[in-house]
Amino acid sequence: MKYRIGLVGCGVVGQGFLEILAAKAEELKARHGFEAKVVAIADKLKGTAIIPAGIDIGKALKWLGAGKSLDEFGPVKAKREAPADPLDVIARTDADIIAELTYTDIKTGEPATSHIRKALQTGKHVVTSNKGPAALYYRELAELAKKKKRQFRIEGTVMSGTPVFTLCERGFAGNEVREIKGILNGTTNFILSKMETDGMEYGEALALAQKLGYAEADPTADVEGFDALAKVVILSNVLLGGNLKPAQIRPQGISSITRQMVLDAKAEGFRYKLVGFARRESGKIAAGVAPQKLSLADPLTGVMGAQNALTFDLDLLGKVTIQGPGAGKLATGHAILQDVLAIHHDLE
Amino acid sequence: MKYRIGLVGCGVVGQGFLEILAAKAEELKARHGFEAKVVAIADKLKGTAIIPAGIDIGKALKWLGAGKSLDEFGPVKAKREAPADPLDVIARTDADIIAELTYTDIKTGEPATSHIRKALQTGKHVVTSNKGPAALYYRELAELAKKKKRQFRIEGTVMSGTPVFTLCERGFAGNEVREIKGILNGTTNFILSKMETDGMEYGEALALAQKLGYAEADPTADVEGFDALAKVVILSNVLLGGNLKPAQIRPQGISSITRQMVLDAKAEGFRYKLVGFARRESGKIAAGVAPQKLSLADPLTGVMGAQNALTFDLDLLGKVTIQGPGAGKLATGHAILQDVLAIHHDLE
Repeated sequence: MKYRIGLVGCGVVGQGFLEILAAKAEELKARHGFEAKVVAIADKLKGTAIIPAGIDIGKALKWLGAGKSLDEFGPVKAKREAPADPLDVIARTDADIIAELTYTDIKTGEPATSHIRKALQTGKHVVTSNKGPAALYYRELAELAKKKKRQFRIEGTVMSGTPVFTLCERGFAGNEVREIKGILNGTTNFILSKMETDGMEYGEALALAQKLGYAEADPTADVEGFDALAKVVILSNVLLGGNLKPAQIRPQGISSITRQMVLDAKAEGFRYKLVGFARRESGKIAAGVAPQKLSLADPLTGVMGAQNALTFDLDLLGKVTIQGPGAGKLATGHAILQDVLAIHHDLE
Repeated sequence: MKYRIGLVGCGVVGQGFLEILAAKAEELKARHGFEAKVVAIADKLKGTAIIPAGIDIGKALKWLGAGKSLDEFGPVKAKREAPADPLDVIARTDADIIAELTYTDIKTGEPATSHIRKALQTGKHVVTSNKGPAALYYRELAELAKKKKRQFRIEGTVMSGTPVFTLCERGFAGNEVREIKGILNGTTNFILSKMETDGMEYGEALALAQKLGYAEADPTADVEGFDALAKVVILSNVLLGGNLKPAQIRPQGISSITRQMVLDAKAEGFRYKLVGFARRESGKIAAGVAPQKLSLADPLTGVMGAQNALTFDLDLLGKVTIQGPGAGKLATGHAILQDVLAIHHDLE
């Protein structure tokens, strides 16, 4: 089957996904029997292109790279109607799969949640790396997907393309997840690593992270633990059957960790990490985000720099840890591909 | 669909798998729509039971626990023919899936390879934790399976139930594996860990490993690297498209590593690990097993005790490491379940 894919949002993740689709087209066909064409791209800033015959991905990426609007892209541009609202694009396109790749708004989940609802309601599968809808409305959206016999997949919301949900679905199939505990935010892990390895004060390390593009100008979401918390909520709700909302938990970030605390911990054989955790406790979910002094025996302790890692405590396998990238154009682009291929293999 | 499963070999792994099947029957039905009955168990030492209506697993496990022969088990024992050769059992049973769980013979791959050929030839899927057939005849058996439109799955051959092959199939789908590097033998990792953390000499640590059941009376296969090599060959052939045979590579084990070497390495900020590796180099596969001094920045360095870990170098994701159990009754039993569920989901 040749899938028709529509992208809503075409920033770093979307362009990473398009790059992979273009570079790997032959390989995906040969190895997975997978073929796709991109029939729509809608981006609030970059414009909209709807081409049912399939967008030339290489040309579109160059176009975007040159800073041109997608409103002007493609052979049928003269005949095209005025740039449409993303909700209209989603409703009108004949895409089988919508990749929702707009920026995360963790407070409202919008406009992504509306995009996803519309896509599912009009019979499309949805894949997303957007943490907002997954943290705030996972259960509602998963139920809507089920009702519509479509898939709602969110691999890219946690640890970018490092497999978490597909790992659980297949690799841990038959296990009960009793607890998850992880380093889920690369920015804070980078800062804590620099404080230890280079003896930096918190402020210095943060400034370096900002300079290198790991941290935003307003670093609150990262350093105060809100980003990690969104991921903990998603993991709780998807893997532990919870029904948490981010607002129910107050995360503790790393802004009060000093260089001296880091060095003292090191001298004692420990290392500070910003740890997100969730576990079942007498029928309820206990979850949180806080700096923890981990012993050197903990698999999370060796995870340095911007990497992410997650330890699962499983009833059959015991503890299994996966460590990998938590961000990046190709890594997150691959998360989208991973979900699209999962849909493909389930439909095969 | 209710699968009919036949077990050839019913030692620790087989009994672990049966325990899981019995304990999780309801959950597997509810979550995965999976139902199974075990229609045959054939074990050279423990006897044979063929019950097309389904073996009562709980009773069979008690029977085996009491040291009784399966030849005498079950309601139809009076009518049953003389204990059959496993090849006859495989040919005669109406099982959909054969779990080949006999002991590994890494030199000949027998009798497991003959069992697997017979099973595939008579139209059964095969799942196995037996390293012999996977290391020596993977390509032949995979081709036979393809020809017969059946699956040949080997999750349990590397890192027991810690997902490796299912992780690659789904989680890394779309990636090219450029290199694998891992701690693939728990016994040697336990010994090296004890030499460092408890300051033991090699001989002391080996004796402790033997006392705790981690090492065999003849520890050669573990300590000289042959077990890790078998796994490297399997990983090379399955994930890197190689066609290696174990006899082509001379592994280097840990028997010449002294306490002093371990402590000197530690003082320099390194740690000895028995590392198995394979990578593509100008169209060929370079592979081996040898002790390596790893820096503390390597994700494998923190892996202590009998745990296993494997780092994949992937073109889209970069480096991803998974760490988990490398042995154990339930962990390896879960590897078999993981493969059976993969077949189920592919057939759904």
